[in-house]
Formats: sequence, C-alpha cells, structure tokens
Amino acid sequence: MAENDERRTELSSLGEFALIHRLTDDFPLHNDSSFRGIGDDCAVIGTGRHKTLVTTQTMAEGVAFDMTFTPLRHLGYKAVTIALSNIAAMNGTPRQVLVSIAVSNRFSLEALEELYAGIRLCCDRYDVDLVGGDTSSSRSGLVITVTAVGEAEEGAITYRSGAHEKDLICVSGDLGSAYSGLLILEREKVTFQADPNFKPQLDEYSYVLERYLKPEPRLDIVERLRQRGIVPTSMIDVSDGLASELLHLCDLSECGCEVYEERLPIDYQTSRVCSEMSKNMLPVSNALNGGEDYELLFTVAQSDYERIKDLEGIHIIGYMTEKGAPAVMVTPQNTTITLRAQGWQANV
Amino acid sequence: MAENDERRTELSSLGEFALIHRLTDDFPLHNDSSFRGIGDDCAVIGTGRHKTLVTTQTMAEGVAFDMTFTPLRHLGYKAVTIALSNIAAMNGTPRQVLVSIAVSNRFSLEALEELYAGIRLCCDRYDVDLVGGDTSSSRSGLVITVTAVGEAEEGAITYRSGAHEKDLICVSGDLGSAYSGLLILEREKVTFQADPNFKPQLDEYSYVLERYLKPEPRLDIVERLRQRGIVPTSMIDVSDGLASELLHLCDLSECGCEVYEERLPIDYQTSRVCSEMSKNMLPVSNALNGGEDYELLFTVAQSDYERIKDLEGIHIIGYMTEKGAPAVMVTPQNTTITLRAQGWQANV
Repeated sequence: MAENDERRTELSSLGEFALIHRLTDDFPLHNDSSFRGIGDDCAVIGTGRHKTLVTTQTMAEGVAFDMTFTPLRHLGYKAVTIALSNIAAMNGTPRQVLVSIAVSNRFSLEALEELYAGIRLCCDRYDVDLVGGDTSSSRSGLVITVTAVGEAEEGAITYRSGAHEKDLICVSGDLGSAYSGLLILEREKVTFQADPNFKPQLDEYSYVLERYLKPEPRLDIVERLRQRGIVPTSMIDVSDGLASELLHLCDLSECGCEVYEERLPIDYQTSRVCSEMSKNMLPVSNALNGGEDYELLFTVAQSDYERIKDLEGIHIIGYMTEKGAPAVMVTPQNTTITLRAQGWQANV
Repeated sequence: MAENDERRTELSSLGEFALIHRLTDDFPLHNDSSFRGIGDDCAVIGTGRHKTLVTTQTMAEGVAFDMTFTPLRHLGYKAVTIALSNIAAMNGTPRQVLVSIAVSNRFSLEALEELYAGIRLCCDRYDVDLVGGDTSSSRSGLVITVTAVGEAEEGAITYRSGAHEKDLICVSGDLGSAYSGLLILEREKVTFQADPNFKPQLDEYSYVLERYLKPEPRLDIVERLRQRGIVPTSMIDVSDGLASELLHLCDLSECGCEVYEERLPIDYQTSRVCSEMSKNMLPVSNALNGGEDYELLFTVAQSDYERIKDLEGIHIIGYMTEKGAPAVMVTPQNTTITLRAQGWQANV
C-alpha cells in the first residue's frame, strides 16, 4: 500500500491548521494575479483593484453531517452557506458557486434532487449562481464540496491579519446555538435508536436546531457595515468556535485580546440546552468552542465606536491588546482565563 | 433516514450528464458576471473581455483511484492535471488551484506530504499557484477535489458548442493508452493478491502506465495553437473516451461527425496490451471508450488546414457533418459505425 511509509505521524496529533501549514508552507506563488494565497477565508485573485475571491469547503458524511438527522435539503443549503460565509468573512459579495459531489449508490435521484433543492434555495436567497461542478461515484456515503466565487474592491477586503491594538472586537448574532442544536439532535438520535416508535418533540428547540441544520451566511452584516461606511480592520467567520477564531486573529494580526464573558451573546435556548444536558455544561463553553455558528467575528478601529455601537445584531465583546499579550476572557468575577482552541484553562 | 423517499430512481439508471441535467437544469443565473454556467469544461466569469475560468473536479478513492497501485505523489499530480485539463479545454491559461481533501485517519502526515509533493510538482511544472483549500476528516478513504482558476480573452475561449459543418476534427497525442495502463495495473494487482512475493515487471509498459498514473494537461497544445494563430471552433478534453466527447461536441454544436478509424492515434503499447489481454479486445475500442487520456479534442475551420496539418502532436481524424447527421466512425473496410458513449454498435 502506497500510504504505508516507515515514519508515521498520526493526523490526529496535528490540528487542521498545523496540518495545512505542514502541507502547504513551501508552495511558492508564481503569478502576479495570485494576490493572496493560503491562510485566510478566501484566496484573493486579480491584478487590478477589483479582486476575485475564491474559497472551497468540503463536507463529508459521518463527520460534517449525520444522515440520520440531516434532511438533504438542509444539507444542500448549509453546504452553500459555509462557502458563502467565507466570502462574507472577506467583506466580499458572493456571485457564483460550483458544487462537486461524490455519492454512493445508496442515494437515489430523488435524494439528490432534495440536496439540489436546498442548494438552489440558498443560491436564490443570496443571488448567487450555480455555474459548475461535477458528480462522481463514491464507495461510501456522500462528500460535497462547494467552491464559491465572489468579488470585492481591494481596499474593502478584510483579512485576518489586519487588527491593531485597541481595536474593538465585535461578533454578530449569538454563539453556541448551532452546537446546542447538534447536542439535541444527537440526544434524540440515541433515544430513537433505543425505541423506533419514539416521536421526538423538537418544537421548543426550533431556534437552535435551525441554527445547526440551516445556518445563514451573514451577508446582511456585510451589507449593514457597508451602509455605515465601516470597513473592519480584520474579519473571520466563526466555524470552529469563538476561541479558535480569536486565536487566529491574534496570531495573524500579532496582537493579544481581551473579551468579557458577560458580553458574549448567548441565546436563552442555548443556555437551556446546556442545563438540560449536564449541570457541568456551561453555555459559555459552547459559545467558545461549539463552532458552526457561521457568525462574523471582526475588529474595528476605536474611531468607529459611535458608528458601530448600536448596529443591529452586533455585539462588542472586547478589544485587541498589544503584541505578545495573551488572548484572554475575563469572567464576571474578574478572573482571567487564557483562551485555547477547543478548550480553555483558568490562569489562576 | 432522510434519503428513504417513496419514489426511488437509481443513479445507475442515468449517465453522469443526464444526472447533472436533471439536478441543475432549472437553476437561473442572477449575475451579469456569470457569463457561462453549467455545461462546458469550465464556468466563465466576468463582465469585461478578460474572463476568469473556474472548474472543479473530485476524485474518490476506490472509484477514481485504487490506493493499491496509485502512489500518492502521482495521485496529487493527476488530481491537479485533471482540473488544469479543463482550463486547457477552454483554450485558457491556468493560474491558481485550490485543493480540498477529506481524509480518514488511515492516512498519516507522511502520506499526505507525498500527496502534496505531487500537487506541488504539477503546480510548479505549469506555473500554477496553490492558493487555498481545506482539509477535513472522512469516515472512509480519501476524496480530493481540485478547483482550478484560469484566464482567457473572451474571443479566444473555445466552447463545446462552436463547431460547424465541415470543420476538421483534431485530437492531440494518442488515445486509449491511459486505459491500457489501468488494465495492466489491475492485472498485476490480481497476481500480487494471489502471491504477495510476486514482483511485477512493468518496465515494458512504462508509457501506458505513466499515461494512466501521471497524465499531463495539454497546455503545450494550447500554446502551440496560439503560436500559429489558430483558435479552435470547439474544444473538449478527453476524459471519458473519444466517443463520448465527440458526442458532446456534436450534441452542443448541433452537428454530426465522421471520423476515420485508421486516423485514430493509438500507441503501439496500447495495441500490445490489448492483444495480451484478450484476442477480442480491440485497440480502437480502448481509444473510443477508455477515457482518462486528457488529450484535447477540437475542431478547426477548413481554412486553418494549412496551418494545422503539420502541427506536432496533432492528428486530424475526421470532420463535422450537417445538423441531424449521426456521429459515426468509418472503418478501413468502409463500414460505418454509429458512435455511442461507452460502447459502439455496427450500423452494417
């Protein structure tokens, strides 16, 4: 077998970003039109002021989604959302998508029509065109890759690396709700498997379920910022959880940060799910590490405070600190917690 | 399970193109910049004369490749080739690729480094930049999706739909060799599985093996045509076999075609593999239906005959016929055979 090498470093010993660094660090750029390569939400292409943004995102069955509780229409919608969210995170406007699927013969034509109905719904909602893709067979399950193409003027593009000390840290919507929805779905799945006659009552969780199953790219926020003449200094979408995304902004912008626990926007359903699940499950932990919220996390200059402070759907949660400072969260008890990707540890 | 619908049409009852039509036919285009959508080798994007070409291609383990005999370095190279070949088929110049992989923990970091070494080799060879992508886990095996971005002037772009009656049909390189390479690898795999001490002797098949394992995008042909000032009237790359691709050109250009069996370029190793495999296996059948050659099939106006007739690596194999006429191959015995995708039948 070709993959049986003598050395063997398990992929599980590296995070996704460390892996990407290892695999792609020594790729040189040959073309003038490769304006920005690997390392942000999108690649930026073009030699003029008007740039093309391109991003690609893969979702694999059994990892990114569980067919037991994921309607295919929702899956199609979400796959497009995730790609468009990357365009939003660059402060761009999405225009086109290409969809590649690898699919096993377990799926029927009707099932794929449902998937594409969801893809179409998201495309129509955001005025985006499906312009290409391919279909191929797979031995097991469904793998869907969406490539999104967008546009932005050079001066308006927001990178992860543009934050400065004292910039305000803002986040849209609320955090941790998508993960709370997933927890509910996984709980109901276990109950259903034990008793196939079980009829789950999900109405009271409708908000968090929708947040997980059918998230929206926050292009409305991009538009609202534009209307107020605000260009964020840095931006990223919240796909892996707030902690992980804050660390990316700090790392690439060469800053520390300080966010306030009581400022983190958390929906009451998220809090309720946590208390139902376990007395040890804290809503703030879901917000920091849950992921899949697809909200926008961004920084603005202090001088933009008046313009941003009452912007609908935006929460100011903290500020960037000086180079070399850690990324921390301050609790209501004034304890400082150092943020870690996928987990956090008390400093005291 | 979400995919258990009442109606159930098996995917195997549709070809890939019929499936794509069913899934995507009613997607409207909203944006001026969506110059050309689904239905060609690439999407064409942009409002000015200078267009961006985008294409995406997925390869799934166990279907598009067999890890038993596919070195990961070759696989990485080939995955990029397939995407660049689509840019070549539009008469464009590739500039960037994005690579998404879904990978199971069966693969080590060292294995993925081999994969990316192959990706890099192909990128370096064709002056293409790796500018993005993502990695995710998969439950089983490796799925690799390459998105390629290229550029072309509007007037130089070649579509599948541009051929006219009497245009000359040309093909680069030779046909059927990649499939012959695959046949050899599959034969050696069976022998190896029966006797693990078996050491395959593959030197004498080196050409067809390379054609299968490490094909090249024919960007050299695009360049050569450009140097001679030839813009093909239509073009497609040979991924599914000559018959299938000719039928696409005929269908979309609303023409018939006539190609001559004795004109089809077939390497002697391809012929030899066929005779070794079975006395009933005809080299011409591999050329028509083998696929994965990634040669360019194109048409030029008769007025370009003098400029194309001695162009290195190009073979004129026939001509386009009038609307409504069938797509046929004429044998040396002057029998006319109607071409079918994946198989052909004698007309008598």
